[in-house]
Amino acid sequence: MSDRRQPFRVGIVQEQFGDSVEGNIALLENRIEVLASRGAQLIVLPELHNSLYFCQVENTDAFDLAEPIPGPSTERFGALARRLQVVLVLSLFEKRAPGLYHNTAVVMEADGGIAGIYRKMHIPDDPGFYEKFYFAPGDTGFVPIDTSVGRIGVLVCWDQWYPEAARLCALRGAELLVYPTAIGWNPGDDPDERERQLDAWMTVQRGHAVANGLPVIAVNRVGHESDPSGQTAGIAFWGNSFVAGPQGELQKCASDSAQELFTVDIDPARAEQVRRIWPFFRDRRIDAFDGMTCRFLEEKK
Amino acid sequence: MSDRRQPFRVGIVQEQFGDSVEGNIALLENRIEVLASRGAQLIVLPELHNSLYFCQVENTDAFDLAEPIPGPSTERFGALARRLQVVLVLSLFEKRAPGLYHNTAVVMEADGGIAGIYRKMHIPDDPGFYEKFYFAPGDTGFVPIDTSVGRIGVLVCWDQWYPEAARLCALRGAELLVYPTAIGWNPGDDPDERERQLDAWMTVQRGHAVANGLPVIAVNRVGHESDPSGQTAGIAFWGNSFVAGPQGELQKCASDSAQELFTVDIDPARAEQVRRIWPFFRDRRIDAFDGMTCRFLEEKK
Repeated sequence: MSDRRQPFRVGIVQEQFGDSVEGNIALLENRIEVLASRGAQLIVLPELHNSLYFCQVENTDAFDLAEPIPGPSTERFGALARRLQVVLVLSLFEKRAPGLYHNTAVVMEADGGIAGIYRKMHIPDDPGFYEKFYFAPGDTGFVPIDTSVGRIGVLVCWDQWYPEAARLCALRGAELLVYPTAIGWNPGDDPDERERQLDAWMTVQRGHAVANGLPVIAVNRVGHESDPSGQTAGIAFWGNSFVAGPQGELQKCASDSAQELFTVDIDPARAEQVRRIWPFFRDRRIDAFDGMTCRFLEEKK
Repeated sequence: MSDRRQPFRVGIVQEQFGDSVEGNIALLENRIEVLASRGAQLIVLPELHNSLYFCQVENTDAFDLAEPIPGPSTERFGALARRLQVVLVLSLFEKRAPGLYHNTAVVMEADGGIAGIYRKMHIPDDPGFYEKFYFAPGDTGFVPIDTSVGRIGVLVCWDQWYPEAARLCALRGAELLVYPTAIGWNPGDDPDERERQLDAWMTVQRGHAVANGLPVIAVNRVGHESDPSGQTAGIAFWGNSFVAGPQGELQKCASDSAQELFTVDIDPARAEQVRRIWPFFRDRRIDAFDGMTCRFLEEKK
């Protein structure tokens, strides 16, 4: 990790998607162009941005949405990255082999090549979020990806709740954390529960920023998507895409209801300074952390 | 961890201390009596509550403040715990052997006995907080303490910034986390920096509540203490003692400037419910967490 990095500008696409993959991609191409024209050097899209969030139901037909990496999306977005000279964080439904699929983030370098991939390690399974049906747990580990704007710890959605994922990226020199996301409310939940969930989501991620002294970027969907089965009220994706600085301070946050594009400037010198006044890495009790690799630690009888 | 725990009431003592140890202890005895009269069953005191925060300077005379455990303080507060039938979390300067001292939390059971101790594992060392001079790093590990109100993960101040400490307590069945604390501002910092620091401190701890699905209690000093050396402007302990629920939601928070006593009722059934809707423990990628025991993970060349 260099402390001579230049400041850079990130662009965030908080978006609502429709059922046309071509329509979604064309929309995103437009959004990326707009953000690049505003000087964004790193542009982050929401989770599984090419389609509706198909995990509301378990449907084998949805595997038709998957594609290889490299494949059509990396080719198309890669060409755009090259033309605009921007780094892109994509989130794709990867077909790795017949019967083997992943929820995979791909970082496209500004030259159009693939800088690296991250296969989502923590896979949720909740009513309306049946991801364990679709995605095999990732095997990339928590390894940040080097790009022309810095070393990016790319994690995906459910990973947001796991301090270990953030920590391991930071220990491998990540200079920022980026979370493509698809999270929302059950429309049946009451306002207090909604507020607690949204606040918890933001708090735990801002906590990762604090604990690791680095900026955190979360980019979410927005808008309502129906449950194709009709059994539930669907998902109200809650937006609130945000950028937090290395003390967890909120630099910018989108609304819970609108499609939004915004940019934020990140200065790596801030993280360097914060880590000097709060040198948490100095004092970690690594001699006492063995239990972190355990599922649970029952009492010794 | 039982899911049949009864709700219980915690009492928080946010306090300013003076240079008389006897005066401080007498004050605390009064505070504990008041909280017990309000029904508190678990009462938490700030870090190193018997004295001024002596770590502003490195002074060998300060070792006179240390005491064995068990010792005078556990005897005196133990008698009070027994009389009032309350569980107390003390924070003492422990003399373990000549030349071997710890920053040690002691949990007194409601029968007056010692339920368990925790020796602060992460020891800070910053200008004005010269704790590495006084305290050997703890050797207890992160092991919660069983009491009549539940299994308490007791951690101390600087531990607050370490997700590993919270996680390991939770993996060992802690039902709540308790942090006796002595943290404050450098009076020379500008208001924005003060706000960021306070917010970061609260955010990272509320993040532990979220990530582990359990309540978190932080109890801090308040008020200004001078630097005995006269070299700095001293420390403005920032209060803000708080109780957060298992979604990180703030249940109650004290001011940044006043001595305060308050109680909060904690219902373990809430944590049980939250862990059902957010089953983070189910999906931890323990096969990929080996690096957590490393100081840093340099790139493989």
